[in-house]
Amino acid sequence: MTSQMKLAAYFNPTGHHVASWRHPRAQRDANVSIEHYVEMAQAAERAKFDMVFLADSNATREAHIDAISRSVQFVAHFEPLTLLSALAMVTKRIGLTGTASTTYQEPYNLARKFASLDHISHGRAGWNLVTSAQPAEAANFGRDRLLNHAERYGRAREFAQVVQGLWDSWDDDAFVRDVESGLYFDPTKMHELNHKGEHFRVRGPLNVPRPVQGYPVMVQAGASDEGRELAAEFAEAIFSPHLNIPAAQTYYNDVKERMQSKYNRDPNHLKILPGLSVVVAESDDKAAEDFDRLQSLIHPMVGREILSTMLGGIDLSPYSLDEPLPDPLPPTNGSKGHYDSIVAMARKENLTIRQLGERCAGARGKNSIHGGPKKVADYMEEWFTSKACDGFCVLPPYMPGQHVDFCDMVIPELQKRGIFRKEYEGATLRENLGLARPKSRYAKG
Amino acid sequence: MTSQMKLAAYFNPTGHHVASWRHPRAQRDANVSIEHYVEMAQAAERAKFDMVFLADSNATREAHIDAISRSVQFVAHFEPLTLLSALAMVTKRIGLTGTASTTYQEPYNLARKFASLDHISHGRAGWNLVTSAQPAEAANFGRDRLLNHAERYGRAREFAQVVQGLWDSWDDDAFVRDVESGLYFDPTKMHELNHKGEHFRVRGPLNVPRPVQGYPVMVQAGASDEGRELAAEFAEAIFSPHLNIPAAQTYYNDVKERMQSKYNRDPNHLKILPGLSVVVAESDDKAAEDFDRLQSLIHPMVGREILSTMLGGIDLSPYSLDEPLPDPLPPTNGSKGHYDSIVAMARKENLTIRQLGERCAGARGKNSIHGGPKKVADYMEEWFTSKACDGFCVLPPYMPGQHVDFCDMVIPELQKRGIFRKEYEGATLRENLGLARPKSRYAKG
Repeated sequence: MTSQMKLAAYFNPTGHHVASWRHPRAQRDANVSIEHYVEMAQAAERAKFDMVFLADSNATREAHIDAISRSVQFVAHFEPLTLLSALAMVTKRIGLTGTASTTYQEPYNLARKFASLDHISHGRAGWNLVTSAQPAEAANFGRDRLLNHAERYGRAREFAQVVQGLWDSWDDDAFVRDVESGLYFDPTKMHELNHKGEHFRVRGPLNVPRPVQGYPVMVQAGASDEGRELAAEFAEAIFSPHLNIPAAQTYYNDVKERMQSKYNRDPNHLKILPGLSVVVAESDDKAAEDFDRLQSLIHPMVGREILSTMLGGIDLSPYSLDEPLPDPLPPTNGSKGHYDSIVAMARKENLTIRQLGERCAGARGKNSIHGGPKKVADYMEEWFTSKACDGFCVLPPYMPGQHVDFCDMVIPELQKRGIFRKEYEGATLRENLGLARPKSRYAKG
Repeated sequence: MTSQMKLAAYFNPTGHHVASWRHPRAQRDANVSIEHYVEMAQAAERAKFDMVFLADSNATREAHIDAISRSVQFVAHFEPLTLLSALAMVTKRIGLTGTASTTYQEPYNLARKFASLDHISHGRAGWNLVTSAQPAEAANFGRDRLLNHAERYGRAREFAQVVQGLWDSWDDDAFVRDVESGLYFDPTKMHELNHKGEHFRVRGPLNVPRPVQGYPVMVQAGASDEGRELAAEFAEAIFSPHLNIPAAQTYYNDVKERMQSKYNRDPNHLKILPGLSVVVAESDDKAAEDFDRLQSLIHPMVGREILSTMLGGIDLSPYSLDEPLPDPLPPTNGSKGHYDSIVAMARKENLTIRQLGERCAGARGKNSIHGGPKKVADYMEEWFTSKACDGFCVLPPYMPGQHVDFCDMVIPELQKRGIFRKEYEGATLRENLGLARPKSRYAKG
């Protein structure tokens, strides 16, 4: 059988394009419409996506009020885990991956929530671990400053260890429920973690039985060195930010090599899924037209603000819109996920801040393509067969429109080529992604 | 129209009786069966209960392993908010009230989750605020000791203020979504809280639009002086622990009087719902038989342990099972919710620890009754008409059996008497409880 790609459907209210909500085929009140999310998740499941993916932030995005009031993404919307639990009840097979921060949560609380979601969904939960790089988030949690990159990742690593330890609190067969003897669980199959580390002291046991999948699928998105290292140690899926095949290949090889050499992990047990924003239509021309229409809806203030956020919070307002990015750029303590690829693009094409802002604002710095189904599928196939990725995290620029069109036009084309499934292989997210079920640390033999 | 009582259906895995899981009409794997909870919530909705209620603890109950391994309650089960969000999708009208701790959460995170649940359920969320009195919980959050009663309540009060402040972050009509002008929200209708208090510093705004109900319904269960005070200030429903009408009346009058005199609140805007464990059957005799059967399933180790927990964690193992409770009792820093009523019962009836343990273990110290539908309805009507309560929090001793029987036998009897609704009055939990929708603190006029 031909190798098949894995696909995540990344939902954002009204879509990923900053002007999405102004497009006639967008659900304008998506930020509070559960009915919209139900439809979108069910469409993704009919199309056999591996998972729905929801990003998160612990604050309303910080930006000049003129820009933020024209935006919908990261303003005010459903908390992802609450939403995914609801979606678990209206879907049967698709994975449900939500983002949660290791900086503003306690591991005991988070371990409970993901374990509960995994039971409720019968084994379809995934956790996208993030360290929360926005200063606005710190201010909502009584912190005077953002932890620096290394501090955040140090805490994240210990956090992940604690959470996985808590998921092992109960052996898979701990609950015997033996009416005759009166024993509800076998006391030898309950384990206290007794973790005492640099950042956390957690006794356990977790008050949720071991998740259906052993552990919910661990997802990561970091492109920094610390992010790659954390991914090599823990991640089973990565949403990566690269904009071209060579950069994606370099990243792919680096992370998979670290997995093997440093953590003795099978490289097949990690699926690298670059973000891809797709505008598809019946023909290449119609897709270009739709893309231009979307771009024309971007408000001038918004482009610069999005660019600023994507560069880790650098304030670009002191610079002229019609000059190139300052060189060197002022330092930032924010997320470095998109930084390198955006700066490289700006320097290479000698773009002004205005031009770069418009370019980035649309797909928010994500790799993007527009075209008919064949052109889009060709592009995806090329990345996949060049081993630049194991599949994609698909970002609909506006929703429902482009999500539905991707499901109806691109998915059948990928299926025809034998590079995407026609039916789910397994019952759990882990099975569909081809990942092993982790044994408990207390398992014998 | 006759005044009507309000009813909450309080679900516990397999039911509230400690031996519930051994009863043939209990769902033994209820602690991980989402299908079971779906059935139970739908049955409660068909019966027109005001709300489903879920308790919580941030730890597996701490007890001798011989007792805890024979228990199901507070061992390992779904996290309540995750579960309620799932139940929102399979119900339409019933309220969804979950417990969450002010001691082991951050107000920003909790405000988001309840606001999201309120949007997902179209206005049916309720928050039962607890301060978490078990030492086992502290050990899961890196705390060397349990905060004392006053510290916990000080934090709880400020926590509730912050959460309500965050729920007001966006005016009800903030999201204008004006495609023409490009404005998604009106910037004058977004508010930063900028809270700086003794326990919390939280800037805001919350990244969820104002809840459908303004605020999710605020629920409380504390019987201590601090608990009453917090309830008088914030609560809209109380689950109270009293075992007889005079004690319930005293409490009822005290809290409603504090509401008026100290917080200038309308006493009708608080519904006091004593817990009531009901075994119902076709006849009084059959109910007594079923109750005796349940009691006979209690393991001897379990009775003493439950009693110990209900007395705030006092270790009773040094005392003989066949002597009365020591007088005075050793001090405790734990929850005082059941303490006074249990000690009073023990002294009055001169019960040994063994007898008291058996008495308390069954219904876990809650007020309990068994009988045919008429006897149960008479009892409930007497409490209600003597103004000892505004309704009840009904605890099925085993589930589904006793929950289904209550819905099928007691509810129609109450409806026939005109003291319980035949149809939901409103669309939101707040409307069904007869509570006003709170205005935003930023509302003009």
